[in-house]
This record gives sequence, C-alpha cells and structure tokens, in this order.
Amino acid sequence: MSKNIVISIDAMGGDHGPSVVVPGVAKAAQMLPGVRFLLHGDEIRLNAELAKAPAARAVSEVRHTDKHIAMDEKPAQAMRRGKGSSLWNAVESLREGEAQACVSAGNTGALMAISKLILRMGADLERPAIVASWPTMKGITAVLDVGANVESDAAQLVEFAIMGAAFHHAVHGSMRPTVGLLNVGSEDQKGHEEVREAHAILKETQLDFDYRGFVEGNDIAYGTVDVVVTDGFTGNVALKTAEGLARFFSNEIKSTLTSGPLAMLGALIASGALKQMRERLDPGRVNGGPLLGLNGIVVKSHGGADAKGFASALRVAADLARSDFTAEIDRNLKRLTAPAAPGGASDGAASACVERDGASE
Amino acid sequence: MSKNIVISIDAMGGDHGPSVVVPGVAKAAQMLPGVRFLLHGDEIRLNAELAKAPAARAVSEVRHTDKHIAMDEKPAQAMRRGKGSSLWNAVESLREGEAQACVSAGNTGALMAISKLILRMGADLERPAIVASWPTMKGITAVLDVGANVESDAAQLVEFAIMGAAFHHAVHGSMRPTVGLLNVGSEDQKGHEEVREAHAILKETQLDFDYRGFVEGNDIAYGTVDVVVTDGFTGNVALKTAEGLARFFSNEIKSTLTSGPLAMLGALIASGALKQMRERLDPGRVNGGPLLGLNGIVVKSHGGADAKGFASALRVAADLARSDFTAEIDRNLKRLTAPAAPGGASDGAASACVERDGASE
Repeated sequence: MSKNIVISIDAMGGDHGPSVVVPGVAKAAQMLPGVRFLLHGDEIRLNAELAKAPAARAVSEVRHTDKHIAMDEKPAQAMRRGKGSSLWNAVESLREGEAQACVSAGNTGALMAISKLILRMGADLERPAIVASWPTMKGITAVLDVGANVESDAAQLVEFAIMGAAFHHAVHGSMRPTVGLLNVGSEDQKGHEEVREAHAILKETQLDFDYRGFVEGNDIAYGTVDVVVTDGFTGNVALKTAEGLARFFSNEIKSTLTSGPLAMLGALIASGALKQMRERLDPGRVNGGPLLGLNGIVVKSHGGADAKGFASALRVAADLARSDFTAEIDRNLKRLTAPAAPGGASDGAASACVERDGASE
Repeated sequence: MSKNIVISIDAMGGDHGPSVVVPGVAKAAQMLPGVRFLLHGDEIRLNAELAKAPAARAVSEVRHTDKHIAMDEKPAQAMRRGKGSSLWNAVESLREGEAQACVSAGNTGALMAISKLILRMGADLERPAIVASWPTMKGITAVLDVGANVESDAAQLVEFAIMGAAFHHAVHGSMRPTVGLLNVGSEDQKGHEEVREAHAILKETQLDFDYRGFVEGNDIAYGTVDVVVTDGFTGNVALKTAEGLARFFSNEIKSTLTSGPLAMLGALIASGALKQMRERLDPGRVNGGPLLGLNGIVVKSHGGADAKGFASALRVAADLARSDFTAEIDRNLKRLTAPAAPGGASDGAASACVERDGASE
C-alpha cells in the first residue's frame, strides 16, 4: 500500500462526463490514500466540478483539452482523428510514465483501438481481453473475454485464463484462483475444437492457478469458479443476456411490490431488506472492466455508471497498478512455452480428440 | 381444433418418470380435448399411476417395455443399445404414423441422436435445432439453437430463423413473427463471418416473417423480437447463464424476505403479489423445447419438470401437430433457393464485407 500511484482519467468519457467523474474521484480519494489523479478534459467544466468537491481537488491535476471522442464514434475513425482527445491523452499519460493506470468511461471500441495503438500488446501476448466482474452466490467471478474479440483460438483462450487468474488475484484477492472454461457440457469431448484444445493445454500445464475444467453458463451465477474463460462473442452475449434479465427481474419486483395497497405495505415494511438485496446485486458495486494484455493498465468504466460505480473502476485500476499482475502473467506464459513433462502433452491432446458432440441438458 | 391428435410419450424419461408423466397427462387432457396419448414404459408402474388419475386413464394407452435409457447415457451408446427402450419406441410410434407428435423428458443427447436416426432430417434441411421459449418483458421469445449443435454456418443460421418463425407462429400465435440474429452489436460489420453472412441472406430474401437484423443479449429479456437466432454453443451458454441467474435472484429474494422479523412480515403481507411474480417468471410455464428440423414433431421436456411443466410440453407438441408448421418451413426454404430479385443479393453480400470488429458497449 506504500506505492504512490497516479491514475490518468478520460474525464469527458461516459454518458455524464465530469459531473460523474469528479464526484467519483472524491469517493475514490477516501478509499485510496496516496493515489493522485490526472484529469484529461475541458478545464472550465472540470474546475467547476472540482470547486464543489474539495476532496477530489486536493488529489487531482487537470490537463486541458477541448477535444473528445463521441460514444458512438467508430473505432477506426477514433484512431484516425482521436489524437489530442481526452481519451487519447489519458492513455498517452500511461506510456509517458506520468501515470500507472488509466480509466475511461468512454467508447469501448475506441478505447481498445487507441490503447492497442499507443501501448501495444504485452510481451508474448497475442490478443487483449475485456474482463467483467460478476456478483455471484459465492462472491465475485471474473468472466473474460466479454467483447474485445469476436473469435478466439485455443492459444488465446489459454492466455485469457492466465490473465483472468492474475486479475482475480490482484483485484479480488483470491490466493490461488479457480478457473473454468465455458462450454456446453462438462465431459472432455463436449464443445467445439477451440475449447477442447484449450482444455487439453490447461489440463497438462502446471500454472499458478487451479484449473477446474469445463463449466456451463449456470456456473457463472453459482460462483463455481473464480474465473470463467470464453471467447469474446459468447462472453459478450452471456454478459448482456444477464444484464437484460437483471433489469427484467428488477422491473418485475418493482411492479409486483407496487401492484396494490397490500403489496405496497409489505414492500414498505420489508424495504430495508430489499434495499440490501438491491445493493448486493448492484452491478455498479463491481464496475470496472480492465482491458487485459496491453503494456499498461487500462480500465473501462460502464458508460452509464454513477459516481460510486466510477470510484469502483478507479479502485480496480489502483489494485492492478499496485499488484505484481504483469509479473504473474509473464511467469505463467513462460511455463506454457516450457517443454511439458514427459507424457503430459500428448496424453492431453489425445484425450481431447474424441467424438464431437452437441450439448445435453 | 377439430383434428384428432395422438401424442406418443417416453413415460420413463426425466428425473421422475411415470410419477410426473401421468399427472402431466391428466392436466393436459383438460387443456387439449380430443388428444390421446400413447405411454411407452413399464406397464406396472404406469397402470399404478393411471389408477390414481382417471382423467389420464380415459385418454391413454400403455405400450409396455422394461428397457429405458439413463439420463447420463452417452448419445452414441444410446443409439447402439437403445432399441426397444421407452424413448426409442416413443419416437418410432411417430414414424409408424401411430402418433403425430412425441414428447420425452429424457436424455437430450440420446433423444436427438435417436430421433435423427429414426426420423431423418426434413427435406432440404441441414441441421436440427432445439428451441427454447423464454418469458420476457413483452411475452414469449423463442431462442434457437440452444444446444443441438456446437457450431453453425450462415446457411444453418438462416434455417434456424425459418424454423423459429414457424414455431413461434404455431405455438405462441404471432401472425408475422419478428426475428433477430444474436450478435455483439447492431451494425452490419459487427460479429464473425457466419452471422454477417446470415444477416446478408436474411436481409435480401423475402420471407414469411419480419427480419429485424442484429440483436444483443439483453434484447432476449426485453422481448425486442419474437425469435432470436444463434448457434447452439452461444444459445446454450446464454440459456444456462439465464437459468443460473434466475436461481440466484430467486434465492436472494427468499433469503432477503426471511432475513428478519420485519422483512418476514412484509413478505407475508405482499405474498399474493410475490406469488404472481414467481408464476410469471416460472420457466415451467413455457416448458417444452421442440427438436426442429426432423421429419416429425419431437418435443423435449425439461428433465426436472413437474406435472404442470410436462403438461406444457404436451401442449407445445399438440400445437405443433395441429399447425401447418412443416408447410410454412417448406414455403420459406423454397424462397431461399429461388433466384433473388435483381440487385438484392450482391448488394447485401457487399455490405456485409466491411471491417471486422470487436464488440462495443
């Protein structure tokens, strides 16, 4: 905790910009003593917000730019014309060594494209991944990739497992994270070639985490493992399916408990417990999806996050910056490329080449 | 409603066998006048259950076999040694013309394998699909494939769209179903090659349903479209993710509302409204996942379904048997293979060949 950290922030990103970012910094300042913040954006708007938030002002420095990237701008366009924008400058502060982590609530595609351009991929890593932290029955499960890629081969899935375990260790504090590979069944022959091959590699390699084999969709909410690994297409669909369902449930509860005088009275009486439940299920509580695999720590905050959610993304960035996250990834990547123990590699590969099969119940 | 239908049933399938199947038939008999049932299974156990359920006995005939397929039996093994089992005989009744639809709560993989073997694929159809009916904010959305396949190319996704629309029309009564293709964003260039190619075909072909383009995971619960089309891997993960989350929420509500005397009092007072909500969200209400694409109507009931759930699967089977489901699929398949209107095909294909892109928020 003694390390001094600077976090650079794209203060114009997200649905609300400075009016959420600055109160978010104020909240984070209390949780993160010793951390300072570089706010990139419109200095007039930022100073006006900072004047209302002395806790944020005491730990912040403003870097003016009047350029920012729109939430709906295409990644390719953002790369071409984004230089000098608040998002671009926030990432550049990282490369210049002025900051140890960067947070943006802006356009995900643009953040990914510009971060890859400015920071490049980490040594020996092939593809970045976005990781999401889900509240589950047992705690927090990290799911990745949730949208940096649309397809992933076996080697990339193995990288995601390594990065996800290092993330869970750094941010959610598990000493030896359990890791599962998302599939349509638990037997070795289930699923497509990419997951079966990744399964064989993860089974046969000695890594810093506890690989538990295949898991299924329901295992995410059950919290069966700390880290769930999947390709960006499936992960993105699963995450958004869950978000949609969460909103559906929350609407149903609200309309049920206001559906008549008796229900309203009941809800009023139970309101304390219901508020606790909402907080426990609140996605903002674990806001902050790092873009893993880059030469630098970049965290995406949800575009619609409130100040508390933005502070949570800042906390994730600080935790990653203070951890030996990168060293842990390097260590595991080296084990992957090291020659396997006799018998291991070929056995694993053979056992994965069984009959190909659809999903059962 | 005047057509006389016989439904053949694998009466030994599922977690409970005859003790759920027979009460399920009794419930269905009330909803489905004129429908008769062929119960394949152990006649001693079946007759004992029928003796307790006169409503079922009046419309049922028992076909004895003492062989049945275990819930965890591998599909390949079930195909080899399954002949003469309750599941096998139930499907065979369909081919023999004794029944117009078949329902099993047994092993999904075995049901799929044996149905394909006995019934074969429908004319011009390449792959079967399992369809699930989800309660949503607006009604019922059919999602397919949820697990018959682990990979699907563009032509198969287009078939799923056609089969899903015909299913929604037959079972959930929409006159001109709206159809969406599941993806990680809504723009034409989003996603992998298979979805972009299927999107181009569906956009340019005039079909009996209203193709609305790409939808995302959250659109399922929102009920944005009547039919959501996806590959069996993604669909299975999405379905099970939602099932896991639904159980998580339901546990949270239960533990919240019993967390203290005040919360319990509130829950007691609001209990009528809470019960209504549980019923509205009850997956058993829309139990019954047909295996589409075969020469015959085969419906999978959830293995853990109760009598009400099993009756719902029987209702789905009867609705499909009474509809012109197969004719509707044939009509649309013919339009697919017909030459496209001038300009349509090439434009659509070209617009899909844009930059490949990850998911954005």
